[in-house]
Amino acid sequence: MAKEIWQNIGEGFVQAYYQQFDDTDRSSLGMLYSDCACLTWEGQPFHGREAISGKLVSLPFKRIKHVITEQDCQPTIDSCILIMVFGQLQADDDPPMGFHQVFMLKSTPNGSWACTNDVFRLGIHNIPV
Amino acid sequence: MAKEIWQNIGEGFVQAYYQQFDDTDRSSLGMLYSDCACLTWEGQPFHGREAISGKLVSLPFKRIKHVITEQDCQPTIDSCILIMVFGQLQADDDPPMGFHQVFMLKSTPNGSWACTNDVFRLGIHNIPV
Repeated sequence: MAKEIWQNIGEGFVQAYYQQFDDTDRSSLGMLYSDCACLTWEGQPFHGREAISGKLVSLPFKRIKHVITEQDCQPTIDSCILIMVFGQLQADDDPPMGFHQVFMLKSTPNGSWACTNDVFRLGIHNIPV
Repeated sequence: MAKEIWQNIGEGFVQAYYQQFDDTDRSSLGMLYSDCACLTWEGQPFHGREAISGKLVSLPFKRIKHVITEQDCQPTIDSCILIMVFGQLQADDDPPMGFHQVFMLKSTPNGSWACTNDVFRLGIHNIPV
């Protein structure tokens, strides 16, 4: 079955995002966000492209590698695309850790897509019920 | 600092959702969704309140308990509320498992909030990078 267009766009964004995160200068990640985007990074809020870019650039590691294990995309009622990503990351020589991240994408007037919402958490919770 | 109104609404929804899930008849969960809501449950898509309600009712356990460890809320550009939940669940006598779930809420004409998007995944991935 052919993939829905929103699924192709969502998966393309995810691929571009983590590739840019891992392989190139993190300062260019800001270009993927809309002007007024929101990021919540481990519970800490950042508003606007500049603040988000500053946070991502300041993360305290030199090398990082993300591996995606699952990604779910959905269209929203307001023509956005919601993406939930589940994966593992390894920063410098630390042990691999699980993470999950949610993105919302909105189309821009020039026809491209920008991230308006981003929520990131490390998967370090393991509290028995 | 006082919480933002979208944070109160998001946290109220999360509390009501899992309480209803754990303590009462799961068939009433459908009432929390909008008519055209999307659910992706472990990668499987369900469209519309009826299909979503049917899926939730059909889940193969008698007892379940959710414990929330983290929840992050954000407002969206279209006046929705995005919520990412991280927690643990125990179904019947199975061992506790991590899960994560994303909800998007939209206000309805009568002033209440309905879930338009829901993505659920069990946290059973532990693949080394």
